Amino acid sequence: MYKLILIRHGQSEWNLSNQFTGWTDVDLTPQGVEEAKEAGRILKNSDLDIRYTYTSYLKRAIKTLNYVLEEMDRMWLPVEKTWRLNEKHYGMLQGQNKKQAVEIYGQEQVTLWRRSYDVAPEPIPEDDPRHPRNDIRYQDIKFKAARPGTESLSDATRRIIPLWNISIVEKLREHKQVMVVAHGNSLRGIIKFMKNISNEEIIKLNIPTGIPYLMELDDEMQVVSDRYLGVTDEELKARQEGVANQTK
Amino acid sequence: MYKLILIRHGQSEWNLSNQFTGWTDVDLTPQGVEEAKEAGRILKNSDLDIRYTYTSYLKRAIKTLNYVLEEMDRMWLPVEKTWRLNEKHYGMLQGQNKKQAVEIYGQEQVTLWRRSYDVAPEPIPEDDPRHPRNDIRYQDIKFKAARPGTESLSDATRRIIPLWNISIVEKLREHKQVMVVAHGNSLRGIIKFMKNISNEEIIKLNIPTGIPYLMELDDEMQVVSDRYLGVTDEELKARQEGVANQTK
Repeated sequence: MYKLILIRHGQSEWNLSNQFTGWTDVDLTPQGVEEAKEAGRILKNSDLDIRYTYTSYLKRAIKTLNYVLEEMDRMWLPVEKTWRLNEKHYGMLQGQNKKQAVEIYGQEQVTLWRRSYDVAPEPIPEDDPRHPRNDIRYQDIKFKAARPGTESLSDATRRIIPLWNISIVEKLREHKQVMVVAHGNSLRGIIKFMKNISNEEIIKLNIPTGIPYLMELDDEMQVVSDRYLGVTDEELKARQEGVANQTK
Repeated sequence: MYKLILIRHGQSEWNLSNQFTGWTDVDLTPQGVEEAKEAGRILKNSDLDIRYTYTSYLKRAIKTLNYVLEEMDRMWLPVEKTWRLNEKHYGMLQGQNKKQAVEIYGQEQVTLWRRSYDVAPEPIPEDDPRHPRNDIRYQDIKFKAARPGTESLSDATRRIIPLWNISIVEKLREHKQVMVVAHGNSLRGIIKFMKNISNEEIIKLNIPTGIPYLMELDDEMQVVSDRYLGVTDEELKARQEGVANQTK
């Protein structure tokens, strides 16, 4: 039995100020640090034996992983950082307040941008300093998809799935238990693919920050069971509704 | 021109309490954290463009690297962790106070254990829980040298040099600028090899904590120049004498 543990990064500064973040490299809040440490304590007190880890190129995920590993007393585990696990790029919405965006564009349009599968926000122009082509970390990567001006969830999923199909599956076969610390939409992309969730149903999936999510997989890498660790059903529901209600 | 940046981890809890540490996985002190951040600020304000990093399996080095990368705003850089960069294993001396060791064994013997090239302290027995064979992080590594009961500097250098000769040189050719955050004796092993320092002279080399040391290398990976960054000569001398005087 293979085990894949997914964790969404703890609260970030722009989660708190309710701004669209995407590829903007904002830090964790003090609460986000505490969420990360709590996730680490949950894993330390479990019977899991995680041996390999992945995270994105964004510090809110990298720092979450660092705090999780420190609490687990497994700072020595390998960490693979990849742009493929970055949050969905939110284009020109990045930096905008979510409620203000609703006032300007309407609830329906903003929900489409946030949660639909195929709709991408307006792109950032290539000469904008915020565009990934002007960010040193993406310049040498030999894939154009590493320098998007905007992304739909479909676009983001297309760059995440190859990582699952080749790299993560290979590391699961080698190490048996693998952890991925990433973002709401990059984890959504992985879960959609693994559980074969439709383009319509994925819009309703809300992943809370900082709660380890365990997927058990059979020898053909099919999901046998999945559940959140270390929270009661009520706590989980409250955290998921907090994510869903960010634009209300 | 290739650039290799070496940093010894910031002050650890057992640096502060003056105990032999070796492979014991002690944490940084608050001062050690500040030293790490200061090293990161020095690098951020330099014109270096570091693209790949190495550290050991021990948290005082891993956390130092994490703080350095955070201050540099380069948390996205690849980090390769390897047991080969661990501190020299100090055998049964691990945990012992350095001054007490001098009272028990004499200054000459302790200086031999700390600084000579060939003399290793008494080994930890294999059934001792502190022995690396009983530590999960070293169990699956396919080299017996990853599970020592003690090491001389010669033993430690023998497991470090292959990392330099194959892995680090390869990453230097690919990325041009590489940083290694490790320990007094593992860095001493690398510097001894690169600068061809004799077994007698290496005993006098004291590396201060948390100060970036830049080596510039030509196309055949020979040292062209080397210097510490961001400190005056007086500061450097004071920090080096602090290391040399730990047993006095």
